[in-house]
Amino acid sequence: MKRLALKARPLDMETGRNIVVIHENDSQEIGHFPGDRVKLITERKAIVAIANETNKLVRPGELGAFREVTEALSLRPGDVVTVEIAPRPQSVASIKKKMMGGKLTFDEIGTIVRDIVDGNLSTTEMTAFVVSEFIRDMDLDEIVALTQHMVDTGDRMEFEREHVLDVHSIGGVPGNKYALLTVPIVAAAGLIVPKTSSRAITSAAGTADVMEVLANVTLGIEEIKRIVNKVGGVLAWGGAVNLAPADDIIINTERQLSIDPRCQLLASVMSKKLAAGVNSILIDIPTGPGAKVESIEEARNFAHDFIELGHKLKVQVEVAVTYGGQPVGHAIGPALEAKEALEALLGKGPGSLIEKSTSLAAIMLELGGAAAPGLGKEMAMEILRSGKAHQKMREIIAAQGGNPDIKPEEIPIGDKKEVVVAPYSGYVTQIYNQNINEIARAAGAPRDKGAGILLLRKKEGKVDKGEPLFEIYAEHESKLDEALEVARRKFPLKIEGMLLEKITHRPRVV
Amino acid sequence: MKRLALKARPLDMETGRNIVVIHENDSQEIGHFPGDRVKLITERKAIVAIANETNKLVRPGELGAFREVTEALSLRPGDVVTVEIAPRPQSVASIKKKMMGGKLTFDEIGTIVRDIVDGNLSTTEMTAFVVSEFIRDMDLDEIVALTQHMVDTGDRMEFEREHVLDVHSIGGVPGNKYALLTVPIVAAAGLIVPKTSSRAITSAAGTADVMEVLANVTLGIEEIKRIVNKVGGVLAWGGAVNLAPADDIIINTERQLSIDPRCQLLASVMSKKLAAGVNSILIDIPTGPGAKVESIEEARNFAHDFIELGHKLKVQVEVAVTYGGQPVGHAIGPALEAKEALEALLGKGPGSLIEKSTSLAAIMLELGGAAAPGLGKEMAMEILRSGKAHQKMREIIAAQGGNPDIKPEEIPIGDKKEVVVAPYSGYVTQIYNQNINEIARAAGAPRDKGAGILLLRKKEGKVDKGEPLFEIYAEHESKLDEALEVARRKFPLKIEGMLLEKITHRPRVV
Repeated sequence: MKRLALKARPLDMETGRNIVVIHENDSQEIGHFPGDRVKLITERKAIVAIANETNKLVRPGELGAFREVTEALSLRPGDVVTVEIAPRPQSVASIKKKMMGGKLTFDEIGTIVRDIVDGNLSTTEMTAFVVSEFIRDMDLDEIVALTQHMVDTGDRMEFEREHVLDVHSIGGVPGNKYALLTVPIVAAAGLIVPKTSSRAITSAAGTADVMEVLANVTLGIEEIKRIVNKVGGVLAWGGAVNLAPADDIIINTERQLSIDPRCQLLASVMSKKLAAGVNSILIDIPTGPGAKVESIEEARNFAHDFIELGHKLKVQVEVAVTYGGQPVGHAIGPALEAKEALEALLGKGPGSLIEKSTSLAAIMLELGGAAAPGLGKEMAMEILRSGKAHQKMREIIAAQGGNPDIKPEEIPIGDKKEVVVAPYSGYVTQIYNQNINEIARAAGAPRDKGAGILLLRKKEGKVDKGEPLFEIYAEHESKLDEALEVARRKFPLKIEGMLLEKITHRPRVV
Repeated sequence: MKRLALKARPLDMETGRNIVVIHENDSQEIGHFPGDRVKLITERKAIVAIANETNKLVRPGELGAFREVTEALSLRPGDVVTVEIAPRPQSVASIKKKMMGGKLTFDEIGTIVRDIVDGNLSTTEMTAFVVSEFIRDMDLDEIVALTQHMVDTGDRMEFEREHVLDVHSIGGVPGNKYALLTVPIVAAAGLIVPKTSSRAITSAAGTADVMEVLANVTLGIEEIKRIVNKVGGVLAWGGAVNLAPADDIIINTERQLSIDPRCQLLASVMSKKLAAGVNSILIDIPTGPGAKVESIEEARNFAHDFIELGHKLKVQVEVAVTYGGQPVGHAIGPALEAKEALEALLGKGPGSLIEKSTSLAAIMLELGGAAAPGLGKEMAMEILRSGKAHQKMREIIAAQGGNPDIKPEEIPIGDKKEVVVAPYSGYVTQIYNQNINEIARAAGAPRDKGAGILLLRKKEGKVDKGEPLFEIYAEHESKLDEALEVARRKFPLKIEGMLLEKITHRPRVV
């Protein structure tokens, strides 16, 4: 093993993992190639870093250390660091095994997940893992192992209750603010729901973005536990806690390639819930044209996977396939959705939102033993109608540091507004979910809380030329203009005449 | 499309491609995620770069520009740059198609290769391509397209001759210095051989490393053409010319994952040769335990692929499957190999080297029309025996700026030497190629030209305890020690008694 003594040259930049640069002469001397690992040894400590080579940034004999390495080794300029080639971590061999189509053992998956969380894999190795997951997939044993190791490599919550419930929507439908009704309904029945959710990645608003309009969602593990133990439910942002952190790292690679490997999606959802101490899980699979899952067959396969996985992981899992072919309710965007949810809790909400929220709550009430089988729906509707869900939501808002007395009309909505009318008469035969998202995002959502869309017309029903179809709200004039431009290019409603096709044929000569 | 006007802050570091960093607040503002592309617009010019986000390196409102971007846009500190999200290049969609198992069109492959050469792909995208190539493979049409685009995106050489010959060994066998005999034999027959070759990556010496002991191998395209037109042959380093540069970039990713996708290997070899103007190619596939190709079936499949590919690309291809189960000749390491090759040209070389070199030359002489079918071997042996090959090699060395009069014994070999003897008596039943390479590399090869191994005994034949087996040469005492340590752990010869197994059984009772 060749070793070199190099002089530290701290480079004032963070890189997110342990990275150093060495001069290409030194690199050749120790037989190093770009991207290989090196062991860095000082009198006090030794760490492994990924090394790149340069012929400019440092001189021969120098070790360029980015901030993470400088801090880990407490390096000062000129400190002597012994550098030698470090072996690849064992997980790289396991990634290659998956690449070649092999089945990974429980321990092999554990090593991969551990190295992901510890930042031991290079971008190249990390990508090789995610692409192999996508192409080769994993069987149930492997997904169970992946889930368990993702749970084990992060923090965990525990609640001293027989049933700890949660609901997770795999997403893909705009305006999906059901959780702001479902969680308080279930909590009002005396069950506990430590719901963690995400912010929007490509949509106009995630549950965390919507809840943030009403209360603080950046809560630590202890706060979440305290709130749940006090009021039964919480609506917190999952990104603020360290539950199954491998998932967040893997998602970044998936996003760059626009892929969503089935095995990783399953493990991702289950690991987040298990780490949160949940043992009774309802999975919502919005299904329909323009949703993440487009066909009922695909939804059923997914449902089967989730249920099997739950069985292996010894947690209760039920799956609801819901209609995802158009937005839930009328409001899209954080503040508009928060307003619509509060209105619905007060009994004035749109049918699709109330129907979805209570149907999901019904399953959870039965899962948690609060309602007898078949009676959950009635109980959910009663909790909503009686105002108990509304009262519970006020308690949750207060517990999360929001204003419990806020009225829907007090929620600030963007004051720049434009109404878009029907360009011609006809029937609304389709709503394009993706276009709705793009327009709302152009208007500023989810970052500008007041930005978004209010759909005045949905699928089915006749519209007349000039009749208002939807309103765009924004906080900035320039973004309203951008949103209008997107709306023109990508009109979100399909309007057709009753005459869908005209077939001309000559009378058949007998 | 959201835009931001940011102030340039040049960061004095090269990154190998266009990379910028922006503050995470600004990143959110324009809806950017780490690894996405941004368009950078100044009054003079616009370029696309990959952006990462930070919360430390730059302040909100600043654009951290690494050296490539600073230079491309001629940025000075404080210059205003307009930043907006740029779409992913079309090639990313094609990479996803391959990931999903699709067949790529000629144009799709062209876009991918172009983006690789232009540095437009992120590490993640680049890796996704290479891993998909490895798992999904490519059919012949795709490999033809890959080869042609790899040729088209680099420089090219042309020779005004009916036959332009070359020989390429896919490698994996130590001491493979055959080209130093084969090239001058073929050139001595009046044919032309513009041989470009590589330096060692994981072995003890590449052809370029060996030739560099005798002459300059870092030659430009014009020099190579001039030399070939003058003396018929050249032995140049491929890394000094821009032939099929996509290959060099792809190989870096392959190396990090220790994978060698079949389709990429085929395209790599063929594109380098086509770009060099070669139209008659001999492929050498060393086969045997410890070689890159271990079984004769695998070698035949490879041979078939190469021949089919040559047919499609309208070049002559022949394949020689040679014995690769132990080193060629006795010498391993640049100077030791150069010395052995010169000795063989003078008629004093080891049988395996002369046999391999003249057999390959024979095929090339017939390919190039210098020898009638079946008469190549005789002609090659005659050229070698007569001293014409030796004379030609002297011409090539002179043309490449070396000393044409150098004698084998004048080649400097490392003056630190250790002889390793047989630890017990027995028969040499195997030579471990990989261990040979590791010991020679520990001794300093290929960087220390004089470092390496001289094998005194090869496979088969009895050795007595204490009899010298091999010599290790090094230029530095410390490296000699390291090599000895490696040799102890990974002994390169297997010595067995004649009694391979002892089976004891009770006499059968009838």
